Amino acid sequence: MPHKKVVIIGGGISGIKAAIDLYNGGIKNTVILESSSRLGGRLLTIESKEYPGITYDFGASWFHDCLNNPLLEKAKSLGHVAYYFDDGKCVYFNEDSKNIDKWKFETILDELITYGSYIYTKNPEKEDLSVKALSEEYIGKYHDTLTSEQINLVLGAIRMWTELWLGESWDLISGKYFFNDSGHLGRNAFVKNGYKNVFINELKELPRIYRDSSIKFNAHVTSIDYGNPERILIKLKDGRRYTCDYVISTIPQSLLKISNPKDECFVEWIPEIPPTIKNVLPDVSFSSLGKVVFEFDECFWPRDVERFYGLSKNSPLPDQTKPWDYPTILINYQVINNIPALIALTQNPLSKYIEDLPSSEKSSKIWSIFKPVISQISTIGNEIPKPKAIYHTPWNNNPLARGSYGASLVGTQDPSLVIKAFVEGHQDRIRFAGAETMDDSSNGCAHGAWFSGKREAEFILIQERSKKSKL
Amino acid sequence: MPHKKVVIIGGGISGIKAAIDLYNGGIKNTVILESSSRLGGRLLTIESKEYPGITYDFGASWFHDCLNNPLLEKAKSLGHVAYYFDDGKCVYFNEDSKNIDKWKFETILDELITYGSYIYTKNPEKEDLSVKALSEEYIGKYHDTLTSEQINLVLGAIRMWTELWLGESWDLISGKYFFNDSGHLGRNAFVKNGYKNVFINELKELPRIYRDSSIKFNAHVTSIDYGNPERILIKLKDGRRYTCDYVISTIPQSLLKISNPKDECFVEWIPEIPPTIKNVLPDVSFSSLGKVVFEFDECFWPRDVERFYGLSKNSPLPDQTKPWDYPTILINYQVINNIPALIALTQNPLSKYIEDLPSSEKSSKIWSIFKPVISQISTIGNEIPKPKAIYHTPWNNNPLARGSYGASLVGTQDPSLVIKAFVEGHQDRIRFAGAETMDDSSNGCAHGAWFSGKREAEFILIQERSKKSKL
Repeated sequence: MPHKKVVIIGGGISGIKAAIDLYNGGIKNTVILESSSRLGGRLLTIESKEYPGITYDFGASWFHDCLNNPLLEKAKSLGHVAYYFDDGKCVYFNEDSKNIDKWKFETILDELITYGSYIYTKNPEKEDLSVKALSEEYIGKYHDTLTSEQINLVLGAIRMWTELWLGESWDLISGKYFFNDSGHLGRNAFVKNGYKNVFINELKELPRIYRDSSIKFNAHVTSIDYGNPERILIKLKDGRRYTCDYVISTIPQSLLKISNPKDECFVEWIPEIPPTIKNVLPDVSFSSLGKVVFEFDECFWPRDVERFYGLSKNSPLPDQTKPWDYPTILINYQVINNIPALIALTQNPLSKYIEDLPSSEKSSKIWSIFKPVISQISTIGNEIPKPKAIYHTPWNNNPLARGSYGASLVGTQDPSLVIKAFVEGHQDRIRFAGAETMDDSSNGCAHGAWFSGKREAEFILIQERSKKSKL
Repeated sequence: MPHKKVVIIGGGISGIKAAIDLYNGGIKNTVILESSSRLGGRLLTIESKEYPGITYDFGASWFHDCLNNPLLEKAKSLGHVAYYFDDGKCVYFNEDSKNIDKWKFETILDELITYGSYIYTKNPEKEDLSVKALSEEYIGKYHDTLTSEQINLVLGAIRMWTELWLGESWDLISGKYFFNDSGHLGRNAFVKNGYKNVFINELKELPRIYRDSSIKFNAHVTSIDYGNPERILIKLKDGRRYTCDYVISTIPQSLLKISNPKDECFVEWIPEIPPTIKNVLPDVSFSSLGKVVFEFDECFWPRDVERFYGLSKNSPLPDQTKPWDYPTILINYQVINNIPALIALTQNPLSKYIEDLPSSEKSSKIWSIFKPVISQISTIGNEIPKPKAIYHTPWNNNPLARGSYGASLVGTQDPSLVIKAFVEGHQDRIRFAGAETMDDSSNGCAHGAWFSGKREAEFILIQERSKKSKL
């Protein structure tokens, strides 16, 4: 049974970065256990079937925090990642209007966001309300200073930003923590030729020999036994076993929540899942920010608009999914890659609905929902052509993801405390990494995952150095 | 020689509020010493000479922090202050363009502001740079991600917001503290019928008998003697004297800085100005946000635009004042009061230049600077009519103001520490109030002055109660 100094569970960017830094710090006896047959985790670039050479990112698409993003800096210096700052013209629209002036609601939106943060600063004991309920509370208090148009637009705008930032319905998202978010560090840059190139930039930092020998595919961990204070025992589904001094789990938090031993992704912790983690798992939730790509023969929408922000004023009914029930963001691939395609961002429950559609009617159902919305940005009237291809993200139904990333639902505890439990780990040898373990603006982002891998490698290197110095 | 429990120096809104709360708290033996012949301090409403019944505010014009503004709440409940939320359409323009799309620079502006704050969070020891220098540092670092148009516009926009928020040139304003400002609590509401109505709302809370007997006009304080631990001696220019247990100084910080005993507004502190105040005075500075009102016969600019934001890309030369040298904000009185007038906001050194013009050439010189700028918003071409009246604010040359309000200049210490010295006061009996003594978003605002008066009244009431309970 091989013994490793560190077993890294998960071959996403956090695991890869941890392995790189451990290696460079002198800890070369590590292994990366990837449960699937590909690396990258929630970084996933797919190829267009219609436009050769064109790719779409189903996972991360942007460099966020561009004032402090090491992945962007590396892309700049290496030069083979194509990206651009998508800070051009955007258009707001809804069922009634093809172009809503932003000034009609932006000051109100700022005030609503300030309200959502200020009200909990003034009264930290105030019950957590959903973004929807908190927005309605604001409207209730200040409706005498607002026109009905302003009320409609500001509710539409806050709903859109909440749902398409976090991938979950605004009546489920915690208002207390959503409004308190201090935002990103700088602009965003869209990756044009596939985030896989960003990932490969990292992967290449591991020596060839390490990559060939120490990254294990289809290495599905079924149990982590830390009953022995000397070594941790890791068992895989196929019978392989490892012992190690440290484990870095980059298992998505959505999978750590699984408590049904019959679930194919259940991981058994022996003697038990670390209690500090167990305590916070009820407060962990994965939403599903999805994407639907529509490829057309020709561009029939404005070529100078980066993104179309579609607002909705409807409340979706259970068991029905109609056009205009959900806000959406349409990303204009004509601007990005000179290809007549639109990428629609979706949120739960729409993301889930789309994934669950039987394949026989998938394309027609998706198109029936989006056709009226996309018609609204058309410059050729409502008779718009059918897309020649539709692709959508798989995150909800992917058993190894079960959503796109973490989101704080209403009523859960302070996300900082949840993150703290993961950062502290257990017994200084059970460590956690991944985008959801970052307590800053990189949380949930690719560079956040990278930072977390760096953090855990550093933790272990310091531990080991201090052990040596004690000898 | 009359003895007062509290002598309040200054009949602005902070002094009035202190008197109200002391009175209502049972301390009725107070006096307000106002050095001029009018109350209100830097609240100053003037009447139009051309349009009867129309007023302009030369001091505060807006309710800021509308989510937490007691003056607005009172205006709402009493009903005779006319105000409105001026969150309508605004237009950016410059010498080259009558209408600059905001999307062309707004994301960059956000990033620049984030940069200015983030860089000092990362490195608190970094030397303070002016807003101008810090903006140029940002451009220097990120110019490869920006177009030259974006660079021009973002520099123009940050300069405009800095200078017309603080009333001082962007190369004098501290970047470290400007960018770190967390902003206002909610929207702004413009007072349409004169801030004097807001002031009167307060004044009326003092009983008639108090107002008639205990507010002294032309009561110019020349010395504050606290050498006697039992009582403070206040001397006035006209020979009147008061003794008191407490003094609340609402003297503008710009006047406290005066060290020349020959200055007409010099106040002698005996034995000396409290040392904690003396320490921070070098870091106190008053800028001059000015206003110039142009009244016309007819409106020749768009009637649906609230404010016109004029950007400048020129660096003014010493001893020259040319059109387009300074950014300006033009407030559309046609929208506000249905009157063909524009209010231009000005900053130093332009505010000072305007005040210093000899009256014989004042109107023509002012118009020569503003005509090209105002022509740019004209809908009737460049041949625009002359204004029939021009008014401007008097703050620089008013010996009792010497500027409009406080601003942190580059290289000065943390404004929070300056404020702390004023809030702490001296010996628990020398107290300071005024808009510049607030360490939150109300700093420099009318409601900030009000909050500070409330704070000092409360301090004294608590002191007195605790003395009584000890007896």
